Amino acid sequence: MTVTLNCDMGESFGLYRLGDDAGMMPLIDAANVACGFHASDPDHMRKTVVSAKTHGVKVGAHPSLPDLQGFGRREMKMSRQEIANSVIYQVGALVGFLKAEGMHLNHIKPHGSLYGMAARQEEVAHAICDAAEIFGVPLFGMTGTLHETVYQQRGIPFTAEFYCDLDYAPGGALIVTREHDAMDPDVMAQRCVRALTDGKGTAADGSFFPVRCETICVHSDTPNAIDIAKAVRSAIAPWH
Amino acid sequence: MTVTLNCDMGESFGLYRLGDDAGMMPLIDAANVACGFHASDPDHMRKTVVSAKTHGVKVGAHPSLPDLQGFGRREMKMSRQEIANSVIYQVGALVGFLKAEGMHLNHIKPHGSLYGMAARQEEVAHAICDAAEIFGVPLFGMTGTLHETVYQQRGIPFTAEFYCDLDYAPGGALIVTREHDAMDPDVMAQRCVRALTDGKGTAADGSFFPVRCETICVHSDTPNAIDIAKAVRSAIAPWH
Amino acid sequence: MTVTLNCDMGESFGLYRLGDDAGMMPLIDAANVACGFHASDPDHMRKTVVSAKTHGVKVGAHPSLPDLQGFGRREMKMSRQEIANSVIYQVGALVGFLKAEGMHLNHIKPHGSLYGMAARQEEVAHAICDAAEIFGVPLFGMTGTLHETVYQQRGIPFTAEFYCDLDYAPGGALIVTREHDAMDPDVMAQRCVRALTDGKGTAADGSFFPVRCETICVHSDTPNAIDIAKAVRSAIAPWH
Amino acid sequence: MTVTLNCDMGESFGLYRLGDDAGMMPLIDAANVACGFHASDPDHMRKTVVSAKTHGVKVGAHPSLPDLQGFGRREMKMSRQEIANSVIYQVGALVGFLKAEGMHLNHIKPHGSLYGMAARQEEVAHAICDAAEIFGVPLFGMTGTLHETVYQQRGIPFTAEFYCDLDYAPGGALIVTREHDAMDPDVMAQRCVRALTDGKGTAADGSFFPVRCETICVHSDTPNAIDIAKAVRSAIAPWH
Repeated sequence: MTVTLNCDMGESFGLYRLGDDAGMMPLIDAANVACGFHASDPDHMRKTVVSAKTHGVKVGAHPSLPDLQGFGRREMKMSRQEIANSVIYQVGALVGFLKAEGMHLNHIKPHGSLYGMAARQEEVAHAICDAAEIFGVPLFGMTGTLHETVYQQRGIPFTAEFYCDLDYAPGGALIVTREHDAMDPDVMAQRCVRALTDGKGTAADGSFFPVRCETICVHSDTPNAIDIAKAVRSAIAPWH
Repeated sequence: MTVTLNCDMGESFGLYRLGDDAGMMPLIDAANVACGFHASDPDHMRKTVVSAKTHGVKVGAHPSLPDLQGFGRREMKMSRQEIANSVIYQVGALVGFLKAEGMHLNHIKPHGSLYGMAARQEEVAHAICDAAEIFGVPLFGMTGTLHETVYQQRGIPFTAEFYCDLDYAPGGALIVTREHDAMDPDVMAQRCVRALTDGKGTAADGSFFPVRCETICVHSDTPNAIDIAKAVRSAIAPWH
Repeated sequence: MTVTLNCDMGESFGLYRLGDDAGMMPLIDAANVACGFHASDPDHMRKTVVSAKTHGVKVGAHPSLPDLQGFGRREMKMSRQEIANSVIYQVGALVGFLKAEGMHLNHIKPHGSLYGMAARQEEVAHAICDAAEIFGVPLFGMTGTLHETVYQQRGIPFTAEFYCDLDYAPGGALIVTREHDAMDPDVMAQRCVRALTDGKGTAADGSFFPVRCETICVHSDTPNAIDIAKAVRSAIAPWH
Repeated sequence: MTVTLNCDMGESFGLYRLGDDAGMMPLIDAANVACGFHASDPDHMRKTVVSAKTHGVKVGAHPSLPDLQGFGRREMKMSRQEIANSVIYQVGALVGFLKAEGMHLNHIKPHGSLYGMAARQEEVAHAICDAAEIFGVPLFGMTGTLHETVYQQRGIPFTAEFYCDLDYAPGGALIVTREHDAMDPDVMAQRCVRALTDGKGTAADGSFFPVRCETICVHSDTPNAIDIAKAVRSAIAPWH
């Protein structure tokens, strides 16, 4: 398997539901499980880990800035130490549920603005590494960003990720938005194939930028997420 | 060592300080570290674990109901599953910081109303066990309560705890209050010696009730906590 | 108009959506707007108040116990003063948004467990009154409960409310559940007509209990809430 | 009275205490009362308003970014609308307690990073105005900043504030820190007199910058806050 499919999962909270996790889980290889800071709570984390186990899906942590109302998509100025400790807290909590189900942590993938900040701010990328090296797992991230550089300098295994359902600025910077609109599944699938065959991503203005693609992320809170995941899964079958 | 001294630690939050942790840490054997639900945050948890390591103090988790404003001292009606998952989340988070410092979890001691509810409600005591058996550590609790019965039925090692600085109702039920007043250190020390020699606790009305005392708890948010801890430590030296 | 239709509204939070507020608002006379403790946030409160204004719907406050994860449906032990202050805080916050739109507060209706606790515990009912008399508005409540007695003793105008879409225990105590299932709209409508014509409610076991019905509540988080509201609105037309 | 003394008050939370409010209240003219987002809770807000009434102190709102752990001193990227609604929510909540005590809102003074962001970012300053014009009260702010310009353009009465116990960068930008150290009361008093007589503030490098000083802020969480307030109050007596 040269490429895997990952998805942010377990992003419901209390009575609130987000994403069709039941529909998505059978389609993916790795679940990035929310840890309670941007979404989820102990009950949804447990339920998500149990579901991942049932479907043989690997579980990674999806830690965030502490901002439930903003879904972790509002930047916050936190020190390296504050970020590292927040990530350790969240990942540790998830590992508790994995332990309950006899599973192991597979990776860490920062969520939302924390992901974006790590791609641009050296101190934030280091904070993520400070946490990741405690748990000894790879970090998911984007090629061509500062976090790729820092993670690799620190000797943390890096899994290059491609977002098929988000827009990129020219040059390859990800455009993080609070809500996701429906996207054309076929276009999403073509983007993935181009990334895998040509090593190219398409920016919002149609220009290309270089990408490496070891894992593809499909968002579960895109309205037609299941259709996108199915189309992508089918299109990447030769590499999967 | 037939008796140890434990203390609830790391109960500061953000800029707020509670308890003289720096003064208390050198005096105790085991720290029950707050996990962010009634007190503490990732930074204070990290700092408390580091301090415990420095002083050779064992670290247990001190999970709570989710009630920061009420300091975990207001009862909440939660299901067994909700409580178990909340405890797993908190203990897991603490284990993350222990892992960071190369330490192991020593025990779990529920905080405040969660402790009291486990002493009286079978479902709550089971919820605590559901979490504890995942981490494979002993539970601290009070003899003569429902939680002692349930924890032992479930096969979880039980460490009998005596509170020298809280009042007991006749018969031995603990009286949980939101804030703690200063207490006479010598009286506290005598209570501990009586518990160790006669197996007796003293209720608020002067009557006695049977206690077993494998560990003694001193609260760090009692105004003269350090003096109490010193007096108790000195008085229990023969058993310590 | 001898009976009105009210609905709990504005119960979304951040990215999370709950209830079809856009569909419900044109069908109701009064909106009980969540105030951020069990649901909602400042943005959803503003939006809900604006929508109520557009549709000529009166706005009441829907304050809760402080429990976002439990949606205010888990009982908490709080003192009379703590509850009163929590309610003042929430109602005051809503009044800020009403002021922004040139509107006035119409009523207060406690949410979930706070509503149920006020129906059974005198101190809680008094706490609600302590807050309500500051704002000088009526309280919505159920006939035959302790809160009716206390509210009226305290001289707070009382609006008798009938829940068409919740189950009642024999004798008329409301059964509060965390999630609501779909219900038959015609049965709901019949219940309302019986309450208005015969002054009778139907318990889960088929027995009757006396009700007074000055306002009917339809829940927006019932899956087929809009259909229920339409059926009820149509059935109660002679009294509406 | 050409200058007044104001202080951020009511910044305790639950069991946590911050600042000697009892000692400070008799020394000040206006209290900026925390509204629950960076500090305080409904009980502490009520208690602070009651204490202000007792001492004839005017009450203003001290709204913050939603960040209890960071005490509102970590910047967050929020939209103009999100900030405006957050401020309306907090101010409204405080007005509820003022109504309970028969008092009126005197002013609004944003807290911490919200204050600093309004001094530098036009959209944030507008958000503050969006909220303030609903309540029809003056805004406290610093001369020579963007928020002075925006507030005045919007026609909101502006009260020029001087911070005697914080450091300024050359040019007059305030240096916001998470915790405050003890300061020399006499130096603080001299700074105030210089601001009142010469219209000059002193930056950390000893250089001067122009200030207007209609109200002086003393922080209650500086370790020797009471001594500073007494020294300042005494020194500014000719203008007070």
